Amino acid sequence: METQGKVIICRAAVAWGAGEALVMEDVKVDPPQRLEVRLRILFTSICHTDLSAWKGENEAQQAYPRILGHEAAGIVESVGEGVEDMKAGDHVLPIFTGECGDCRVCKREGANLCERFRVDPMKKVMVGDGKTRFFTSKDNKPIYHFLNTSTFSEYTVIDSACVVKVDPRFPLEKMSLLSCGVSTGVGAAWNVADIQPGSTVAIFGLGAVGLAVAEGARAKGASKIIGIDVNPDKFPLGREAGISEFINPKESDKTVHERVMEITEGGVEYSFECAGRIEALREAFLSTNSGVGVTVMLGVHASPQLLPIHPMELFQGRSITASVFGGFKPKTQMPLLFTQCLQGQLNLDLFISHQLPFKDINKAMQLLHQGKALRCLLRL
Amino acid sequence: METQGKVIICRAAVAWGAGEALVMEDVKVDPPQRLEVRLRILFTSICHTDLSAWKGENEAQQAYPRILGHEAAGIVESVGEGVEDMKAGDHVLPIFTGECGDCRVCKREGANLCERFRVDPMKKVMVGDGKTRFFTSKDNKPIYHFLNTSTFSEYTVIDSACVVKVDPRFPLEKMSLLSCGVSTGVGAAWNVADIQPGSTVAIFGLGAVGLAVAEGARAKGASKIIGIDVNPDKFPLGREAGISEFINPKESDKTVHERVMEITEGGVEYSFECAGRIEALREAFLSTNSGVGVTVMLGVHASPQLLPIHPMELFQGRSITASVFGGFKPKTQMPLLFTQCLQGQLNLDLFISHQLPFKDINKAMQLLHQGKALRCLLRL
Repeated sequence: METQGKVIICRAAVAWGAGEALVMEDVKVDPPQRLEVRLRILFTSICHTDLSAWKGENEAQQAYPRILGHEAAGIVESVGEGVEDMKAGDHVLPIFTGECGDCRVCKREGANLCERFRVDPMKKVMVGDGKTRFFTSKDNKPIYHFLNTSTFSEYTVIDSACVVKVDPRFPLEKMSLLSCGVSTGVGAAWNVADIQPGSTVAIFGLGAVGLAVAEGARAKGASKIIGIDVNPDKFPLGREAGISEFINPKESDKTVHERVMEITEGGVEYSFECAGRIEALREAFLSTNSGVGVTVMLGVHASPQLLPIHPMELFQGRSITASVFGGFKPKTQMPLLFTQCLQGQLNLDLFISHQLPFKDINKAMQLLHQGKALRCLLRL
Repeated sequence: METQGKVIICRAAVAWGAGEALVMEDVKVDPPQRLEVRLRILFTSICHTDLSAWKGENEAQQAYPRILGHEAAGIVESVGEGVEDMKAGDHVLPIFTGECGDCRVCKREGANLCERFRVDPMKKVMVGDGKTRFFTSKDNKPIYHFLNTSTFSEYTVIDSACVVKVDPRFPLEKMSLLSCGVSTGVGAAWNVADIQPGSTVAIFGLGAVGLAVAEGARAKGASKIIGIDVNPDKFPLGREAGISEFINPKESDKTVHERVMEITEGGVEYSFECAGRIEALREAFLSTNSGVGVTVMLGVHASPQLLPIHPMELFQGRSITASVFGGFKPKTQMPLLFTQCLQGQLNLDLFISHQLPFKDINKAMQLLHQGKALRCLLRL
């Protein structure tokens, strides 16, 4: 490749301050160092974690200038020294939580928070040398990285542990959705809850992650999927994802868990909290069957507070759990997921509500912020 | 049997009021009704749940007169209509949380809170007809049942779902310990945490349940077991149960989890909270490895409070869980446990710190109350 080993100048959407519009500008992207890869990003979408970082909701995480973005797909431009599982031209997904393959966590089945490359919202530089690979084109000012990935750029440099290969016969455009939200929801249903055929499910919050849980539950043969949201505009798409009954908490004179108990005669086997609301978390817990119920927490609960559960309630045959990226080990487990999607076990088309060119990224941010978009796919 | 179908008059220790000495008196025990069995109790010991009920710590649970006791062993005197898996003369353990074999929970692997016969501290009468089988001998006043078992009596009537057969070649005296505390601890290590060989373990609170966790962890090949207690008198017995390192929170200028992190280089794989103290629960949670850590709650936390865990902490690769009776399904899983004990996988002798005749039950209650006894075996 003519670019290999050289600095690339390309377009990127740079965040310069909390809540300020991203600035589309030329940036310099250094070549990948040892065990890193440089990717050309073809598709990226926006997830609520990007939105939250853009708003600067957590002051400790603020760092500017920065390139956000983590849900994406692309092609390897070049690889650094020591990278053996990828080469230029490979189709890949960046994954915000990596897999080194060698640490205590990577070696354990059922765990995926790699000790070296786990998701870290505080991290803003590369693991290898503590420096950035992005610089402003004007004055060579370092631009910080985000969530191991920084995909709001035509080119980005990522630790190879955070990149997963995709069979080139698979449509990268759709596969990009598996880089975060859809995998998180599907994995929560498959890996974390391990939904059994014929069981009942309640999903609190019908955004992209909640709908992905529904897709995952349907694929595993759930007999009844109940969707809960205060916005009834989300119900038609929920129905497409396999949800058969809907509860709008604003329109019921009973609590949600009372309604779920009525519908299911004693509670669901599995509930999923995808709304990031503490009241929803307690309702999700109480909606499960006392005896076999499992609640999986997926929503982000930022403010200081405790789990809304009395310790003794853990003795009542209900459990609560959570996981990152649906419990998937990216390198080990994603290839099977890609194949399952291609075979039609999951309907990825459902999640792409909008498509825009990369230059319109600020418009896409607003669509998500206003709750109008599920996923807006940006083409680079 | 000459007593079959007749009322039996026998000695029982009756609780007449919160914290009042138990009264050893004659009581009438009705014959077993449909799906019930009447047992002659040979051995019973006292567990903290008996102590708590005796003190009347939870007002809503108070009911007098009542026969307490649930950790015991005995022989079937007679069986009611429909009981097919037991007959007079069988050696058995009463189990405070039953297994009907037929409900949604009993049919599910990994769950043991039977819908019909699960432990219920509010319950005081038989399931079948809502009446008691005990009456005062003087004026035929009903005497309430406790925890499905009521073993502080020479004879008791129990739902057959709450009775497990023991091979008559096994020593009933020791097997009685498996009727509650030891099984709870061992099951927490085996069924709930599923301790893997070579892993590290921290146990908070070294009473009978904590030591049973240690025995269970040792049997599964844990490489390091750390015991935490404010009473160093418990350390020698802890060492016999396989604990290799001890922490006395009163004698350390660091927090317990900081000490555990130092000893284990990054935290234990499994921690067990057996102290019933909310501070210990948080320390237990923080003592586990971020990535693979599992905390199992076994202690009783009676006062109104929330789990001392921020929701976001569930995303950090640590989980918390709890279970009743160590997750064992009594009828299905206990027979294997009995055999494993007989084969020497667990050292039951360790747990019997005192032995007394039944008439000295009030003395035995005081020994446990004062923290002087691990288990005081009462012979009837």
